[in-house]
Amino acid sequence: MTLDTTFLTESLGDGQVTTGQDALEEHATDWGTATGTEPEAVVYPTTTEEVATVLEAANERGIPVTPYAAGTGLEGNAVPAEGGISMDLTRMNEVLDVRPEDFQIDLQPGVMGPTIEETAGEHGLFFPPLPSSGDISTIGGMIANAASGMQTVKYGEVADWVLELEVVLADGSVITAGSKAVKTSSGYNLRDLLIGSEGTLGVVTRATLELAGRPEQIKGGRALFPDLDHAAAAVTDAIQSGVDVAKIELIDEESAMMSNAYTGADLPDSPMVFLEFHANHGIDEEIEFCRSILETHDLIEFEIADEERMGDLWQARKDLAFAVRSYDPDRQPLHPGDITVPISKYGDLVKEIKDLGEQYDLLTPCFGHAGDGNIHYTVLVDTDDEEQLRRGEQLYSEVVDRAIEVGGTATGEHGIGQGKRKYLLDEHGSETVAAMRSIKDALDPNGILNPGKIFPETE
Amino acid sequence: MTLDTTFLTESLGDGQVTTGQDALEEHATDWGTATGTEPEAVVYPTTTEEVATVLEAANERGIPVTPYAAGTGLEGNAVPAEGGISMDLTRMNEVLDVRPEDFQIDLQPGVMGPTIEETAGEHGLFFPPLPSSGDISTIGGMIANAASGMQTVKYGEVADWVLELEVVLADGSVITAGSKAVKTSSGYNLRDLLIGSEGTLGVVTRATLELAGRPEQIKGGRALFPDLDHAAAAVTDAIQSGVDVAKIELIDEESAMMSNAYTGADLPDSPMVFLEFHANHGIDEEIEFCRSILETHDLIEFEIADEERMGDLWQARKDLAFAVRSYDPDRQPLHPGDITVPISKYGDLVKEIKDLGEQYDLLTPCFGHAGDGNIHYTVLVDTDDEEQLRRGEQLYSEVVDRAIEVGGTATGEHGIGQGKRKYLLDEHGSETVAAMRSIKDALDPNGILNPGKIFPETE
Repeated sequence: MTLDTTFLTESLGDGQVTTGQDALEEHATDWGTATGTEPEAVVYPTTTEEVATVLEAANERGIPVTPYAAGTGLEGNAVPAEGGISMDLTRMNEVLDVRPEDFQIDLQPGVMGPTIEETAGEHGLFFPPLPSSGDISTIGGMIANAASGMQTVKYGEVADWVLELEVVLADGSVITAGSKAVKTSSGYNLRDLLIGSEGTLGVVTRATLELAGRPEQIKGGRALFPDLDHAAAAVTDAIQSGVDVAKIELIDEESAMMSNAYTGADLPDSPMVFLEFHANHGIDEEIEFCRSILETHDLIEFEIADEERMGDLWQARKDLAFAVRSYDPDRQPLHPGDITVPISKYGDLVKEIKDLGEQYDLLTPCFGHAGDGNIHYTVLVDTDDEEQLRRGEQLYSEVVDRAIEVGGTATGEHGIGQGKRKYLLDEHGSETVAAMRSIKDALDPNGILNPGKIFPETE
Repeated sequence: MTLDTTFLTESLGDGQVTTGQDALEEHATDWGTATGTEPEAVVYPTTTEEVATVLEAANERGIPVTPYAAGTGLEGNAVPAEGGISMDLTRMNEVLDVRPEDFQIDLQPGVMGPTIEETAGEHGLFFPPLPSSGDISTIGGMIANAASGMQTVKYGEVADWVLELEVVLADGSVITAGSKAVKTSSGYNLRDLLIGSEGTLGVVTRATLELAGRPEQIKGGRALFPDLDHAAAAVTDAIQSGVDVAKIELIDEESAMMSNAYTGADLPDSPMVFLEFHANHGIDEEIEFCRSILETHDLIEFEIADEERMGDLWQARKDLAFAVRSYDPDRQPLHPGDITVPISKYGDLVKEIKDLGEQYDLLTPCFGHAGDGNIHYTVLVDTDDEEQLRRGEQLYSEVVDRAIEVGGTATGEHGIGQGKRKYLLDEHGSETVAAMRSIKDALDPNGILNPGKIFPETE
């Protein structure tokens, strides 16, 4: 059955509704490996009113609406599971207001990371929790998926820097969640409920973010270790000792090898930790404090890099997601791993992943936001080889199970989407998932907003 | 009609259910001025299971349950509005676990601030967002009311330091919200929805908090200004310049006068700002940076105090809430003001309060967490004088209206309770309040949990 788009073309302008095959295909993919369906139509609203009009009409008709933006999700979060309408928010890409005197910026959801950084930078400010994918992703996507980034270890997550949201609910009503005051205890905190709800409860149409002043001193460096156990232990010890790091990223040997192959970089053949420090005073003392801790873990070398060299290192780190997927055309990433565990369990989990990789004879490059206990592990498999695929799935799941067992989460910053639905019950238990479901049913009784996401097939 | 408590005495132990008049009266009061009703029974659960048993039974019978702990709320948040059962959680006061290697502590809801500080301190850690009332309030109350404190300007609110909650819902089901991982994007963020919901959505039975390492350097001081305009402008400028303060509190002349009368302190007859700085390195440079900014606002004196002297100053600051209410037996606080505004509006709001005080001929002592834009203003009135009461109410409301008008909130950290229900619609709008209501109805369909709070009488 084809969707009759008359109700859409009647209320939106020329070029804001399409059923063209290219657009449908584009909106059926993301960066991950989860499979979804093509939408039946794509709409491109430019105002809050247009978002509300589309949702109200779709709600009356019971037609699914899946919000979409840059398509950089990793779990099929923005790929329709049940056809319907893909709501592409990339044309809502205006900076609405900047109030440097309050460290605040108001954005439409389609604004991308570089615009945030550029606009903030004009006032000596920056947006600390920008994800590694910030160059190619939108603020709406970051909010919908509760994103975080390399600087979360010092500054917190995207959610911690969102003050107020304008959100259109399934029935087209427009709400304001949060406050432009830096704190409020007035009524229910709908803002943080909506953040990370992956477009299943509403569509963000405006976000007020808090910004920070740029630190006076920034220095970075790279530490090499003889093996991964020592590198992971060094990270854990640094965090437990309270070293004030702004970034602390672990990169294992397989990841380094793939990075070299991808970019022609010359990362050494050792596990390594990239670090960055931000301070207004005393940065060298903090770096020396950090060095003294790293040295107790068989540190091979701790290079403090100048700004240009550091830029190259961080670019190599950012490119890892590309490097891993480009490494071998015959071995594709199974799912992008995103477990996060309490820091004392971090070393154990890294070791477990590598041991399982050996046991199952599969490549498992690991990198990620070590200071948060967040590990991006990737299982590379020949997807035409059923048996290898099975082993890969087994490995992947064993790691998630282990992370949940030690009090961690299946996904630190990528969301559940379609790919991780099967872990939701294990992580939260049936009574907690039932509470989530009752909220979904209350705010979206017809189930039109991004159906087939987050919740398991059988709750 | 008297409540038949058989269903309670059957499932709880000896001494865990009372209908004694002393207990009923105790649970009908808090620290504020809002009026409520006496409960018909008070229960004292000691385990999660007992909380669940009571809620399940009350839910089946449609009997209101209002969670209660230290009774330090200011808006009648924990005082029954419709009788029923007062659930006193003060006997659930165990520290369940401390994991210093993860900076984590697990607490029952009745644990009070000093126990948190003492337990954390044994491991060189502390709980940064502890409210000024932390000495006399419970972690359950802090969580239920989205509390914050003097150090929120640097470290954030209580909510920012809560990792995971065990919560009993109205039907007795037990959920776990959040994660022991420092970040998660797995499913809906029920944790932050429950924080600040004032016991209307569930009862917290266990909280896992994050702790922080103690800073190596702590110094404090006091700055005096010729008038309140200059003091407020100095605070605003310091925040806008990005001074790294751990506390920055404004105290007006009326508050200082009342403090002197209450404690026999000798605070000077000028508006003043109390400050504290935390750092691992370079604290003196930061203090000098701060001084350079304060000096541009006609600074009279900036005294850096030693630890003992600083302790006295902070005690005076903490005692302000007592001092204001004890100042004059014939003039009682009308409601404790708690507006919070974007920092650029802070000076205007302080000035507006004092101008209105003059216009209405009423004392309006102001103090509070200036760096957050949070003003605790108190309107003192002779409550026997109808006309004065009317003027006081008028003044109080005009200030809230103005705060909302400039993008702020009616309540930064005290919650809505009964006292601020009339402002909810103005602050959030009817569609946002309807969304809050639909969540309340979904999680507590019989409306047994703390009815008569947060939502306005007519939505």
